[in-house]
Amino acid sequence: MATGVHPVTDEPNLTIRNISTLVTMEPTMGHGKLGILHGATIHASGGTISSIETAEDVRLLPDARRSGSAGAEIDATGLIAIPGLVNAHHHLYQSILRGLGANEDLVGWFQARAPFLERYTSTARFHAVRLSLLECIGSGVTTVFEFASNTRNQGDVEQTLRAAEQLPVRMVLGYQPPPGDPPSLASVITLCGDHPAIERLFCIPGAVIPERNDDAQFARFTSLVEQARRDGLGIATHALEHRKERDNGSLRVLQDVGALGPDTVLAHCIHLMPSDIEVLARTNTRAVYNPMSNMRLGSGIMPLSKLHEAHICVALGSDGATADSGDFFSAMRSGIGLQRALHQTPEVCSYERILRMATIEGAEALGLSEKIGSIAVGKCADLVLIDPNAANFACGIDPVAQVVFSAQPRNVHTVILRGKPVLRNGAVMHIDADEIVAGAAQAAQQIAGSL
Amino acid sequence: MATGVHPVTDEPNLTIRNISTLVTMEPTMGHGKLGILHGATIHASGGTISSIETAEDVRLLPDARRSGSAGAEIDATGLIAIPGLVNAHHHLYQSILRGLGANEDLVGWFQARAPFLERYTSTARFHAVRLSLLECIGSGVTTVFEFASNTRNQGDVEQTLRAAEQLPVRMVLGYQPPPGDPPSLASVITLCGDHPAIERLFCIPGAVIPERNDDAQFARFTSLVEQARRDGLGIATHALEHRKERDNGSLRVLQDVGALGPDTVLAHCIHLMPSDIEVLARTNTRAVYNPMSNMRLGSGIMPLSKLHEAHICVALGSDGATADSGDFFSAMRSGIGLQRALHQTPEVCSYERILRMATIEGAEALGLSEKIGSIAVGKCADLVLIDPNAANFACGIDPVAQVVFSAQPRNVHTVILRGKPVLRNGAVMHIDADEIVAGAAQAAQQIAGSL
Repeated sequence: MATGVHPVTDEPNLTIRNISTLVTMEPTMGHGKLGILHGATIHASGGTISSIETAEDVRLLPDARRSGSAGAEIDATGLIAIPGLVNAHHHLYQSILRGLGANEDLVGWFQARAPFLERYTSTARFHAVRLSLLECIGSGVTTVFEFASNTRNQGDVEQTLRAAEQLPVRMVLGYQPPPGDPPSLASVITLCGDHPAIERLFCIPGAVIPERNDDAQFARFTSLVEQARRDGLGIATHALEHRKERDNGSLRVLQDVGALGPDTVLAHCIHLMPSDIEVLARTNTRAVYNPMSNMRLGSGIMPLSKLHEAHICVALGSDGATADSGDFFSAMRSGIGLQRALHQTPEVCSYERILRMATIEGAEALGLSEKIGSIAVGKCADLVLIDPNAANFACGIDPVAQVVFSAQPRNVHTVILRGKPVLRNGAVMHIDADEIVAGAAQAAQQIAGSL
Repeated sequence: MATGVHPVTDEPNLTIRNISTLVTMEPTMGHGKLGILHGATIHASGGTISSIETAEDVRLLPDARRSGSAGAEIDATGLIAIPGLVNAHHHLYQSILRGLGANEDLVGWFQARAPFLERYTSTARFHAVRLSLLECIGSGVTTVFEFASNTRNQGDVEQTLRAAEQLPVRMVLGYQPPPGDPPSLASVITLCGDHPAIERLFCIPGAVIPERNDDAQFARFTSLVEQARRDGLGIATHALEHRKERDNGSLRVLQDVGALGPDTVLAHCIHLMPSDIEVLARTNTRAVYNPMSNMRLGSGIMPLSKLHEAHICVALGSDGATADSGDFFSAMRSGIGLQRALHQTPEVCSYERILRMATIEGAEALGLSEKIGSIAVGKCADLVLIDPNAANFACGIDPVAQVVFSAQPRNVHTVILRGKPVLRNGAVMHIDADEIVAGAAQAAQQIAGSL
């Protein structure tokens, strides 16, 4: 099986029948906060959900209609369907650095990383991004935000796009123009313009918020924010990941340069002052919670319930090699558990809320909630079917809660992107996984060998 | 493939060749705190490790010797070997309650559980224990402590043993005699005496520590402790899981009734006062950390580094349906991350330490460190081979750190118990997994249907 360009096309018609538990994430449908239906059938046409019929509807339909229009069919008896998961903060290019500095904090990790980055090539980026995307699909992630910091040249972007062409995941690209004047944003906008694998482009004016007294960084940051705004791009940066950022008034800096607002996503947001939370709320800026990375690095714990109380949209992310894992079920489980254990009560975060964060709130944070993040007529047909009939999941009381607390990537049975099955029975279709792993191993070895 | 009695016999001879990374957990071997060897070969004979040869040794051996003695062979090129994991606190019988009360704390969970327990049968216990054991093997756990609280009669014990006979895992059984006088401990000792699947028997004098003013509970607890001591059994109970236990002087109660010591394991130990830590240290009592359950219930965070500073042996556990998952890699990852995030530094728990807790310290806590918990000549041949060549694991910098931070049960390639392969390529051998899942599903349905 050759790995070539993945055809980013829609299945003309797809019917998913008899879904035992359909979690639509649309409270106006079905029952409960998550809009749950049992025995439903979904029809997709041209990559979009064209109808959702309940078991009752299906029973009432004439036989002719019930058999569905011509096209692929999936029998989802016994399976749970959720929207494709949205990983709102990742560094796909870091997969070949997993395990690095495993007992280090963020600063130590940066130091450990430096010699690897010096030897990093565009080809390494291609292989690493491809490997991470393969992991995403296997974990039920259909949309991922690639925070492509440390891009050094247009070749890096081209190789990221090349990887994205081969693996069927929606990519939202956060591009950080490398040092230099004028910044290369315009050419990347052109590159990504109508690129079928790139859903949206964000500008990273800087990987972290510059300090006020750093004039050069500040000026560059400001100029990139202005350019991004002019070009209609989103803005992304890391914010308040490290505790030394706590008293810097970082969010005020962002505010002063016009970088806050609903088109801005801030990763981490751990060491927030109460005034920072007010600023985020007032400006409708989006935050991304990265529990697995925050735990591994010992960065701290996002004040999630305070953000929720302030009605701030918080998405969920995994955050590259500082988490060592893109397992998004683990991210949900860790994310909820970290809050509950800290506050000594489960009331601070329900499983329904973390599922929202991993789907519809992620979509909102990335400005894509009209297209993805829930299962509704007119939305893209991005779905994940989970098989609960396994030793680690079976027989539970609440299969929806268990998507958060019991599920592992091995339970991902089918992944559908744009109405097209891209993973069946745990294997990504039309993709040679071994070739992708081997390619990444070779790239990693080349870097390690030159150290 | 029929599920019958699993032959709990040793493989006469087994050779595991060319192990790319062998983590012995014996600091006197190989390099580093974990005793790491590359390219080693292990010979097992009669269930015990008879030799460990390094790549250098193997090269120097005459050809005849190199080919090994007659017996099964495994080529472990490209694989990581670790000792079989030790899950020191589980409630295997709860697997059919996964997902229950998913937004409840411990008290709420007990309330949610009550109607299910009322309808719980010995047959349900058989199916649930079997399902959990199947999950254990798939997660690389070769020794598990079954905290069999809520046993109502000897039939419950018999069904637990029946399940243990079918699944190749070492079981340490914690038995809580049901209410009644005289307690049924003697008959269970006879039942478990030379039972091939039961490694050791602990007495649970009460699921929680009685309060001083609860005379009846206190007297029963005391009497069972005395009986356990007389019969050479270990003692196990939950301790300081709920914050209301903080100011009770619970550990003083245990001390007063003679329940502390190196043969006692206390699960959770979250809400410890400094004086409690002193008591645990002075009496050499063992503690079990159950991060996933503590996170899910919002019980709080064990003061792990304080226990470590006091040189208290702390094992790792998963803790039944209040974790919803027996994924022991997730337990390691959560366990380390919870401590690091809380204290805002990775220094509070190294990955080496959590690997120790999941292996040799677990063995120590259960009084089995002479037999299991590390890979050494003369110890039982309980090993796990992990395949890092997968999308979620490949190409990292430090495969040993990644056992903690990247690994998932799907990476468990081979599990060897008593020198015998019991899982190959992710599938448990000679076991019909579907039949086990179906049996548990039916048992769960019978209970749920009668609610």
